[in-house]
Amino acid sequence: MSRKANQPFVRNAWYIAAWAEELDNGLLARTIMNQPMVIYRNAEGKVGALEDRCCHRGAPLTHGHISEMGLQCGYHGLTFDTEGKCVDIPGQKNIPPQAHVQAFPMVERNEILWIWMGDPALADDTKIVDYPYHDDKENWPHRKAMFQIKSNYMLMIDNLMDLTHLGYVHNKTIGGNPLNHVGAEMNSRQTENGAYFVRWMLNHEPPPTYKTGGQFTGNVDRWQEFEYVGPSVVLQWSGALEMGMGAKENRDQKGFHLRLLHAATPETDTTFHYFWSTANGYRQDDPETTQEMYEQIYPTFIEDKVIMEAQQDRINLNPDRDLVEIHADGALALARLALDKIIAEDREQMAQAAE
Amino acid sequence: MSRKANQPFVRNAWYIAAWAEELDNGLLARTIMNQPMVIYRNAEGKVGALEDRCCHRGAPLTHGHISEMGLQCGYHGLTFDTEGKCVDIPGQKNIPPQAHVQAFPMVERNEILWIWMGDPALADDTKIVDYPYHDDKENWPHRKAMFQIKSNYMLMIDNLMDLTHLGYVHNKTIGGNPLNHVGAEMNSRQTENGAYFVRWMLNHEPPPTYKTGGQFTGNVDRWQEFEYVGPSVVLQWSGALEMGMGAKENRDQKGFHLRLLHAATPETDTTFHYFWSTANGYRQDDPETTQEMYEQIYPTFIEDKVIMEAQQDRINLNPDRDLVEIHADGALALARLALDKIIAEDREQMAQAAE
Amino acid sequence: MSRKANQPFVRNAWYIAAWAEELDNGLLARTIMNQPMVIYRNAEGKVGALEDRCCHRGAPLTHGHISEMGLQCGYHGLTFDTEGKCVDIPGQKNIPPQAHVQAFPMVERNEILWIWMGDPALADDTKIVDYPYHDDKENWPHRKAMFQIKSNYMLMIDNLMDLTHLGYVHNKTIGGNPLNHVGAEMNSRQTENGAYFVRWMLNHEPPPTYKTGGQFTGNVDRWQEFEYVGPSVVLQWSGALEMGMGAKENRDQKGFHLRLLHAATPETDTTFHYFWSTANGYRQDDPETTQEMYEQIYPTFIEDKVIMEAQQDRINLNPDRDLVEIHADGALALARLALDKIIAEDREQMAQAAE
Repeated sequence: MSRKANQPFVRNAWYIAAWAEELDNGLLARTIMNQPMVIYRNAEGKVGALEDRCCHRGAPLTHGHISEMGLQCGYHGLTFDTEGKCVDIPGQKNIPPQAHVQAFPMVERNEILWIWMGDPALADDTKIVDYPYHDDKENWPHRKAMFQIKSNYMLMIDNLMDLTHLGYVHNKTIGGNPLNHVGAEMNSRQTENGAYFVRWMLNHEPPPTYKTGGQFTGNVDRWQEFEYVGPSVVLQWSGALEMGMGAKENRDQKGFHLRLLHAATPETDTTFHYFWSTANGYRQDDPETTQEMYEQIYPTFIEDKVIMEAQQDRINLNPDRDLVEIHADGALALARLALDKIIAEDREQMAQAAE
Repeated sequence: MSRKANQPFVRNAWYIAAWAEELDNGLLARTIMNQPMVIYRNAEGKVGALEDRCCHRGAPLTHGHISEMGLQCGYHGLTFDTEGKCVDIPGQKNIPPQAHVQAFPMVERNEILWIWMGDPALADDTKIVDYPYHDDKENWPHRKAMFQIKSNYMLMIDNLMDLTHLGYVHNKTIGGNPLNHVGAEMNSRQTENGAYFVRWMLNHEPPPTYKTGGQFTGNVDRWQEFEYVGPSVVLQWSGALEMGMGAKENRDQKGFHLRLLHAATPETDTTFHYFWSTANGYRQDDPETTQEMYEQIYPTFIEDKVIMEAQQDRINLNPDRDLVEIHADGALALARLALDKIIAEDREQMAQAAE
Repeated sequence: MSRKANQPFVRNAWYIAAWAEELDNGLLARTIMNQPMVIYRNAEGKVGALEDRCCHRGAPLTHGHISEMGLQCGYHGLTFDTEGKCVDIPGQKNIPPQAHVQAFPMVERNEILWIWMGDPALADDTKIVDYPYHDDKENWPHRKAMFQIKSNYMLMIDNLMDLTHLGYVHNKTIGGNPLNHVGAEMNSRQTENGAYFVRWMLNHEPPPTYKTGGQFTGNVDRWQEFEYVGPSVVLQWSGALEMGMGAKENRDQKGFHLRLLHAATPETDTTFHYFWSTANGYRQDDPETTQEMYEQIYPTFIEDKVIMEAQQDRINLNPDRDLVEIHADGALALARLALDKIIAEDREQMAQAAE
């Protein structure tokens, strides 16, 4: 396993480029893997992602607007389709073949705009992480957020795969006693393209939010399940059932359930966009419950942002310096091993594509 | 013709360093071609341009002040003349020969301070672009402005030499219908040291400003004449005459006349100072007319500044990437060809000077 | 003598890292010679200086807190002692030997925290500049300050060793007539590890502050004594005695006395922290006197900060360019010669340590 903090980009992979609702305000300017993009929905409702640079004089296409023909540049009026082909030049009949801009494959699914940053020939949309909870508002009402974090994207994966930080980073919010976290029962394993762990706290008194949400009268069996799907997604399922319901055998029962989608889409080598959504599987008919959970989680993730950015500041002084492993890094180490494999495969594919 | 957006500096050329009136407030700090300068008027009224760095401890001379003897450094009091020679060191009789700073030839003419950035032996002031309208306030009342634009200076020349951008960049201000501009009659040609074009819109209804300014009752013949004088100046004459006056044969008749001087003086490789003046050749006895025209033009040029800076942001990602030419680029292409020639000559001269 | 403005770091030397009172507010983040540090006082009252980077995931230790065991990281709870050794990892019994961070020797003396930036084996605390006036509040009440200056640290030594700048930089505050300063009687000499000068202005009318402070009725003999103790400290003793008291033979008599400690601790190659304290050896029983002197000096040193930062801006354009010496640079030249020698010794020592 590489012990370097920063990790390179994986190109042949699907990333969250934006939440679908972000396009409600028109064109969206977003940089992914150092590539400034214009992300937009054309007049027919199809989403597109083009490099944000007109081929004529280099002006950003995000200064343009959507016309019937496509995306029109705001400098001299050239218009492009979602494949990046120039379809109109004012005052000119023949369009030269070199008049095109780079386009990136996009898929809209589960309220998410997924983008493929690698070889277009390999863009297989069956490999997109499925997130059906977004389409099931009745059982999983949810709320989404996004913010930029000034660190390498892998610092977020590290953060999520080692929950012993809860007692230190979040000691004023959700953390509680640090040693509770250090002592939890952990099961972790490698998966096909990532890593998985579940932490169990059996026969625990439920925290206030859990108690209200799950209408518990006595102690509960709590769990926190995290799955890293490399290179950029983490799926979280946290919850609790009343003792005696056999939570370890079957968690799909009425209780307290929380699902979070986390995604770290690299913006530059040392910044990423953190997309997250929180869905409550309890009190689903009360919109305030969804909002309350969102408002509890938001400041917690800002605490993570602060520590990750501070961490990156130090790593930048000498990015090649090794990190020292401790026992709590078990699941984190599995996630990093998975990423090592993904990076190796990606390099091979990109080398073949370049031949 | 080079299709690269950014163009190198031409050293053996006269540039606008400042409007003469900018010295009313004492010393002026300005960077030209990466060289920080102090520009000033000495006690006898002569203008000087020195590198903004005292030879003693490196302090900027712009922190000093004008004394009877010359420009005095604000750190330990050394004084320099407009040739850059140290003429006084407090407490010391003999002035060592190495006590001097670099001086640049300057000419004050037509309310403009022109500076020569190349080999001083070649500084021939007959090559300065003549602009007599500034000296003829009766017929050409005018108003000047200057602002920094964060792009290579050539993006401004490109902008002015392709007016099809009016309908897109200025569609909310002076642009009007884009296709009017695309369809105008264009005549362009190379000149000795630049390029020239004139656009004609015959038998047009005059826009409101034109109608009021020229006191027109019917349709007009309109023109827009632009001359690029390489490397950094563009002269503009826009106007209209009532139909039937033979505008195409003789434009020097009573009507609507507007003269603009545009100059792009490189500050760094990717920034320049944009100097412009607007002179109205109609209603000359009404100072409000001059002010109104100035206030109409100012926000328009800010729109250009926004698009040029956005363009440069994208060009910076890969400055060597080619731009794609379109038909509307005709006059722009002639200007760039002229610049190619000027750059080649300049390099030869600078190489000879260095021998 | 090197005529380059910027000078390299000297590692084997004691520097002021902080005033002791700065630790009253807990952990202190400070960068010295490009090394971000956490400076703190542990539960037993001992001061420590560690690199501000946890060996586990690179998080800054300045985000942590002081516990009974030592300094605890705020990310996953590792704890370090003042030697940089990890003494606790939550949930883990054995601490691997590589779990440590770099520690720097520190000495607390005379209300100052001194740090050693070089080979720890050479950290001899008898070489620390003695400043007993801080421990003698009865005779030398004092007040301290610190601010960052964006220039190479040697520009401050230059500034203090050539007082002819007073008439130009401080002409609106303490400077007075420039030629007074240029004409003062100067005695300067090299010392073992620096340079020394004393300026005498005999039979002078005392300035207002001096008159009030020293209760003078007639003219005075004034002096300004400066000693550079390389690489980073300057000791100042300014004052005046009534004429006829034999000031030149014995200054330790009742009159007007002012002692300043100046230290320039390099932060980066082109920034430093300026530590200064001012102690009044007159009207010692009146706290307002100390405060008034502090408030007089503060804006004067800000004037120096402005000129030094402007100077550095120009030096940065070409740091290898020579400076031109003038007569007033006598003591400054001795200080620079002393530094040349210190740098040469330091390089030899560091090369031996690296063997």
